[in-house]
Amino acid sequence: MRTVRSIRTMQNVCREATARGKRIGLVPTMGFLHEGHLSLVRRARKLSDLVVVTIFINPAQFAPNEDLKKYPRDERGDLRKIRDAGGDVVFIPKREDIYPDDYETYVTVEKLTTALEGASRPTHFRGVTTIVAKLFNITRPDVAVFGMKDYQQAIVLRQMTKDLGYPVKFVVAPTVREADGLAMSSRNKYFTPSQRTEARCLFFALRTAREMVKAGIADCRKIEKEMRAAIKATYPTAGIDYIAFTEFSTLRPVQEIRKDTIVSLAVKVHGVRLIDNMKLL
Amino acid sequence: MRTVRSIRTMQNVCREATARGKRIGLVPTMGFLHEGHLSLVRRARKLSDLVVVTIFINPAQFAPNEDLKKYPRDERGDLRKIRDAGGDVVFIPKREDIYPDDYETYVTVEKLTTALEGASRPTHFRGVTTIVAKLFNITRPDVAVFGMKDYQQAIVLRQMTKDLGYPVKFVVAPTVREADGLAMSSRNKYFTPSQRTEARCLFFALRTAREMVKAGIADCRKIEKEMRAAIKATYPTAGIDYIAFTEFSTLRPVQEIRKDTIVSLAVKVHGVRLIDNMKLL
Repeated sequence: MRTVRSIRTMQNVCREATARGKRIGLVPTMGFLHEGHLSLVRRARKLSDLVVVTIFINPAQFAPNEDLKKYPRDERGDLRKIRDAGGDVVFIPKREDIYPDDYETYVTVEKLTTALEGASRPTHFRGVTTIVAKLFNITRPDVAVFGMKDYQQAIVLRQMTKDLGYPVKFVVAPTVREADGLAMSSRNKYFTPSQRTEARCLFFALRTAREMVKAGIADCRKIEKEMRAAIKATYPTAGIDYIAFTEFSTLRPVQEIRKDTIVSLAVKVHGVRLIDNMKLL
Repeated sequence: MRTVRSIRTMQNVCREATARGKRIGLVPTMGFLHEGHLSLVRRARKLSDLVVVTIFINPAQFAPNEDLKKYPRDERGDLRKIRDAGGDVVFIPKREDIYPDDYETYVTVEKLTTALEGASRPTHFRGVTTIVAKLFNITRPDVAVFGMKDYQQAIVLRQMTKDLGYPVKFVVAPTVREADGLAMSSRNKYFTPSQRTEARCLFFALRTAREMVKAGIADCRKIEKEMRAAIKATYPTAGIDYIAFTEFSTLRPVQEIRKDTIVSLAVKVHGVRLIDNMKLL
């Protein structure tokens, strides 16, 4: 496995691989990898000949009040995990190479970014689409793999990929959960063991929703009420940012559960903003 | 020579060429080709193995009050000219394939687009950068060739190419002029013969500037005054949109002519907005 830190080198490595007929698979990450990320790497391994994993904590997707500075890092651990999961190249660009002082180009998806996460984090998706476009351009992948845990991100990036004509097969892989249901996230690292237990409130809320739907309840307002109760029962001081029932592909809000409905939520747990989601039918 | 109208086919043609080690050269145009465009095709021919010329009248770069609807077309003539100039593939996408109804992704270069053309045409460059990014993504070129006549466009696109990490050699080819100095433009088509003579006022202004600089005058204000006089002498009712002296790469205004100074201007001639520019040292 090879580690590349220069943009120029990364461009050349991918160009040469493509010129030899190899299919390139890209997995963009912010590092501090867990099983969720590694499932993406394994998926890319199956779908391509050269698996490129990128590690870049992208400042453009953090607001000034967010956790850019304390975002966890473990480059040595990441490299070992990527190698074990079948990665071929790890691209770890420098911040000043990705965003030099005279940087001024941004990619925006206008409508899909206004709801849910975009409403709470107005500059977040512009940062995400810009960095992923840049990584697409540097590596020119045939396939790119993203995680379903960041559901809106996946929808937004899929739209960008289609709108901008990228010849990239866009794959969204299922959320990987801990044994107790908590969705894997690098930010889980921030919790003490007892906080970690309270962080399960998101999963409990989703499980409540799924059980209600199984029992034949389709009224989103009713389900949301019980989800809020489930959160508060686990973690009474939870700050619920949103609970949203939307059409999967369009993010349009729905009142009744249908086949393409997804419920997603964002909750602040001891100062850490967590997100999760689940399809309900 | 091959004509391609589908995005998917164009992606595949380029992918296959790249996988066989061929270098792709891209020349984006809006059609109605003149010698200026053809000089770009010939330049691409020298620099690449597969020359892709695109013809797309890009609605996103026209404001509602501009000449999108009457912009001249001549597909058959264009195909013949491209073949003679050495093109391999002509990509003529449909408007509804480039911008389907649910289209919502845009690429913006923020600072370089505020001056000159951007000040007069606020949404113009967003349209230009978006379509060129999309053409870059569809064709994944090794080299792309643009014309110096659209000086600010070249600077803006060069910035986008660098900022977004495109592994594309960015070439800007010199303006081609008619024998009498008028810069070639598809919009020259709009003129009657007598209007065509008045359209030379831009070139006369630039020539005046160049001669003053040769005579040792470096004060931009003085030169601008004489340029305005030259325009009015040729075409008394000219609507001068701007005459600007700027640093070549940054578009920053300058007061004194230096080695990297370029003068550019936009003038409305009988309802047709023309632009031109010249380096002065």
